[in-house]
Amino acid sequence: MIAPTPQPPYYAVIFTSVRTEGDHGYDKMAREMVALGSTMKGFLGIESAREEIGISVSYWDSLESIKAWKAVAAHQVAQEKGRTTWYAAYKTRICFVERDYGFEQ
Amino acid sequence: MIAPTPQPPYYAVIFTSVRTEGDHGYDKMAREMVALGSTMKGFLGIESAREEIGISVSYWDSLESIKAWKAVAAHQVAQEKGRTTWYAAYKTRICFVERDYGFEQ
Repeated sequence: MIAPTPQPPYYAVIFTSVRTEGDHGYDKMAREMVALGSTMKGFLGIESAREEIGISVSYWDSLESIKAWKAVAAHQVAQEKGRTTWYAAYKTRICFVERDYGFEQ
Repeated sequence: MIAPTPQPPYYAVIFTSVRTEGDHGYDKMAREMVALGSTMKGFLGIESAREEIGISVSYWDSLESIKAWKAVAAHQVAQEKGRTTWYAAYKTRICFVERDYGFEQ
């Protein structure tokens, strides 16, 4: 689903990743992190897709909310497991969304 | 491939879409638009994945470069065909990338 974000400005975290082979508990963790992140103050939505690379974009009301989510204990554990087990590589980009526009049939 | 973008700041265009049924020339156009966009001044890279939704993030050196790409004639034709044929819905978000960090095994 396209995230029903409010009028800009708001923030986006673009997380692009390349997985290692095998699941190793990744799918369960990914579902749990989406569920947990969605309960955070300032969370505005998330969009994800994976083919050769995975792209997850989460939307937030402020840099403070992004920082608070990064610091959540269960998320810290997932980030560490990401580096040791799940990801061959990733990049996180913190963005200020200046403008948006869309279309719906 | 994770786009080898330079040190921030730079810009990102997050294009999230839901397709209609059938190809209708979409795959050919998508390949052509990536090839053409990549030749534009200020283009820094692109990342794409599609499952239920498609996410394409293109990276640019400036708002001027983003505007120039949006105005290219062949891209305008593709945008119009997107609204009439290929997409049930889409959202475009113009972002200023403030910070990034990554990891590689």
